[in-house]
Amino acid sequence: MSINRVGIFDSGVGGLTVVKEVRNTFPNLDLFYLGDTARLPYGDKSEDTIINYSYKNTKFLLSFDIDLLIVACNTSSSFSLPYLEKEFKLPIVGMISPGAALALKRTKNKKIGLIGTRATIRSGSYRKEIEKIDSKAEVYDASCPLFVPLVEEGFFDDEVTEIVARRYLKSLAEKGIDVLILGCTHYPVLKPTLKKILPDVEMISSGEATSLHLKEKFGLGESLVQPSKIKGGLRIFATDTGTHFKEVAEKLLGENIELESAVL
Amino acid sequence: MSINRVGIFDSGVGGLTVVKEVRNTFPNLDLFYLGDTARLPYGDKSEDTIINYSYKNTKFLLSFDIDLLIVACNTSSSFSLPYLEKEFKLPIVGMISPGAALALKRTKNKKIGLIGTRATIRSGSYRKEIEKIDSKAEVYDASCPLFVPLVEEGFFDDEVTEIVARRYLKSLAEKGIDVLILGCTHYPVLKPTLKKILPDVEMISSGEATSLHLKEKFGLGESLVQPSKIKGGLRIFATDTGTHFKEVAEKLLGENIELESAVL
Repeated sequence: MSINRVGIFDSGVGGLTVVKEVRNTFPNLDLFYLGDTARLPYGDKSEDTIINYSYKNTKFLLSFDIDLLIVACNTSSSFSLPYLEKEFKLPIVGMISPGAALALKRTKNKKIGLIGTRATIRSGSYRKEIEKIDSKAEVYDASCPLFVPLVEEGFFDDEVTEIVARRYLKSLAEKGIDVLILGCTHYPVLKPTLKKILPDVEMISSGEATSLHLKEKFGLGESLVQPSKIKGGLRIFATDTGTHFKEVAEKLLGENIELESAVL
Repeated sequence: MSINRVGIFDSGVGGLTVVKEVRNTFPNLDLFYLGDTARLPYGDKSEDTIINYSYKNTKFLLSFDIDLLIVACNTSSSFSLPYLEKEFKLPIVGMISPGAALALKRTKNKKIGLIGTRATIRSGSYRKEIEKIDSKAEVYDASCPLFVPLVEEGFFDDEVTEIVARRYLKSLAEKGIDVLILGCTHYPVLKPTLKKILPDVEMISSGEATSLHLKEKFGLGESLVQPSKIKGGLRIFATDTGTHFKEVAEKLLGENIELESAVL
């Protein structure tokens, strides 16, 4: 199967950390990104609402004849993946399975930390996936509901973020974890702060995990002629284009974008 | 005109601070509340999106034969009021005009502080309303985008909230304001923290301002026989009932509620 056109959605801007990684690793892919900015955030909403929104996002991206869908939102991945896979006939990559696999690959003591939104942690999605692969692994988790708003406000490496992070990570720090799954696509920008609190712990990001998964499971990347040059297209849509999405997106991606409006 | 049934909406739980005040002041009214929890928050979204959601919320509440609508969301009031008034033929009370009037009544030095969401501040709604009534009044404003998530997380009187508040209020504190409009229905619970930073400043809440407005403009309250006893009904709807809305709502209202689901 040939994969050329890939659809990616997230509740907002966070999934662009996955876009950046995928775009750098597979520069020939044509990417179609949708940020559901009119209805974000997903992390405190209910299972039914998250599944409903994920359906609509997928339908929108299917109009671009995509060969593969990446659900670049851990909250959506935690709840909607089986429903999307049942409804839509294309390969779908979520954040949970790649993240769990990479964490297991990197841990030495099998003590795995996990942080995410309230909904992601409540779902138990990472825990189930990790225990399915290795029943001896131990998972210690903590929900971090204020991290998304703090990132959205640009409080990346800030006194406030550090105080909040110390509270959220207190119990994890005492467990002797050696890897920490950043179970939300917003979190990679918080790495400098998280590293202050857990200096010896390796951070697992959804972007890196997804790229690795695409290589291993779909054989992507082998056939690329000029991996250092981005040749594929990138179209970015948002359900609410009137916010500061464009500005934050350009900062995250390191390139100028033309933001298009999506009506779902 | 007789007002017995009142519809009230907000993006989420914050508008219940207005419900509480209105219910205590006018205990005979039947209230119908809608929290648009499936699409909250409004404060960082665009004008078009906010107006669109406000329309849908109003239509839903009209199905209960309401005599009056209260838009208990400062962000929605800032943008959608003229559109709603044009489209729907019933009296509509927003948060801006009552808040501006009460602030002008209470200020002695005519230096008025205002805090709100990014969208409310951007709209200039309070400033325009205040300058229309008294062109000599000075308005100093600050948007406080992290206050809503901090309140939603229960960080009412907390070290983190205080650090964030000190940053947000720094410029206002230097202006010599003597009143501060809490231009978001989430903010009244932050009063203890705000009082630490601005001890001599009087806080103006949307709930108090709305009750006063209903008395003065609609003559409500005069005919009540037993003002101390709540006799009116209260039905509470949410567009996403699967969150911790019920728990927070009961804490805010001080009474048990039966949460109903709204499909818009």
